[in-house]
Amino acid sequence: MPVRYDGPGRGWVDRAGRARPLGEVTLLPPAEPGKIACVALNYAADGTAAGGRGRPADPASCAVVMKPPSTLVGHGAPVGHPGAAWELRHEAELAVVIGAAAKNVPPERAAEVVAGYTCANDLTGYARRAPEEPTGHPPVWAKHFDGFTPLGPWLATDLDPADLRITCRVNGATRQDGGTRGLITSVHEVVAVVSRHMSLLPGDVILTGTPGGSGPLSVGDQVEVSIAGIGTLRNTIGTVPDRPWTPDETGTSGGTRRPSGRSA
Amino acid sequence: MPVRYDGPGRGWVDRAGRARPLGEVTLLPPAEPGKIACVALNYAADGTAAGGRGRPADPASCAVVMKPPSTLVGHGAPVGHPGAAWELRHEAELAVVIGAAAKNVPPERAAEVVAGYTCANDLTGYARRAPEEPTGHPPVWAKHFDGFTPLGPWLATDLDPADLRITCRVNGATRQDGGTRGLITSVHEVVAVVSRHMSLLPGDVILTGTPGGSGPLSVGDQVEVSIAGIGTLRNTIGTVPDRPWTPDETGTSGGTRRPSGRSA
Repeated sequence: MPVRYDGPGRGWVDRAGRARPLGEVTLLPPAEPGKIACVALNYAADGTAAGGRGRPADPASCAVVMKPPSTLVGHGAPVGHPGAAWELRHEAELAVVIGAAAKNVPPERAAEVVAGYTCANDLTGYARRAPEEPTGHPPVWAKHFDGFTPLGPWLATDLDPADLRITCRVNGATRQDGGTRGLITSVHEVVAVVSRHMSLLPGDVILTGTPGGSGPLSVGDQVEVSIAGIGTLRNTIGTVPDRPWTPDETGTSGGTRRPSGRSA
Repeated sequence: MPVRYDGPGRGWVDRAGRARPLGEVTLLPPAEPGKIACVALNYAADGTAAGGRGRPADPASCAVVMKPPSTLVGHGAPVGHPGAAWELRHEAELAVVIGAAAKNVPPERAAEVVAGYTCANDLTGYARRAPEEPTGHPPVWAKHFDGFTPLGPWLATDLDPADLRITCRVNGATRQDGGTRGLITSVHEVVAVVSRHMSLLPGDVILTGTPGGSGPLSVGDQVEVSIAGIGTLRNTIGTVPDRPWTPDETGTSGGTRRPSGRSA
């Protein structure tokens, strides 16, 4: 059931205003984006396979890649492993949720277009190579599989993003321990840069980059992304659902058509 | 005003059923996607900078990159050049518009989830290098700028995609001349592969790859993508609008919130 946080005295309340224990509710992703923009290579110690390579000449053009909204899952939702052809890696990141339509935002005005902040695991799959394959070409990675963007547990709407500790634990062991002080392009500068590249709309999500320590995940792993001032996002890696094909709707009825995500 | 095609006898008609000359109407992109999935390196003669490199070991995992819906523009709309830091390149492609929610579609059933086909220009920017920069690292490219997915002029709903000629002309000179017979992964197989990677929803768009001949574009260039059985998509490259920052809405009113693009 949908709930909202009603302050320290009341906790989580449902639509009728009744308090609900947190354990009773399912937390959905705290954003409904038209796009998810991921800033790559934004920590000096970025431990991803692409880390340190390929930064563009113009710092104003920091590398941005896109994830589709179908990657989103909330706190506690299982994430399907994409299968043996892919190495799945965690990337703990601060997520910015946009609250206002904007283009060409100056960094010093970025806070005005931010609805709040939450934790993200910017899951990425790296294609495994056959042993006989030639080396020397860049890794093929993919960020678009269903479930690849755990987001939550909730939105922190009154937070200064300048110095927030970010950690990632896998089965309780710390894998990443960094913070937004280590960002090459700061959170407000990231909002500014992305808004120069593309129109921002309410609900859009920006993932700001991952500190060093990104590593592989296996089926059954429990992954926790914690950010100071927000909380902990916890998800478990499950198996690939071996779902046979059954079209939800065949033909052109298109009952779930969404309005256009194009900018105004 | 919104129009629909009412057959050869009637042509384009408005909501009231009145026939409208094509020159009187503005054609919008014939899809409202939650995501735009681009299949890379899908022609042997792909002339893009990334062409021929980095294909994953598993052919079932063909390389897919995402564009946000804010990249969409229709036939005739101007496209802003992203500026001097970027080389802008055309990529003429057959676009698939999805008509039904689906996951894990077998290739032989792909036609059942397709609403129709249209022309796309999968515009891509390559970051220009400063002369003193070290070489040897992969090109940094970006597909997410506003206007980077011209789509149209309309949807062809009764088309066999197996053997369609695709051409791209710039200022009248032919730059690309290929066809879907040259696809490494066929159109129906592309739908199947992408649906194994991620949930497809009505309105989603898949760009199937570009034949050899992709090349740079300058401000003022007129680009025409023509596909047999569909028509011609024409757009002109304009300058970057030097728009000062004026937030459409400041704060959290969020009047244009869209429903979630997550899969059911």
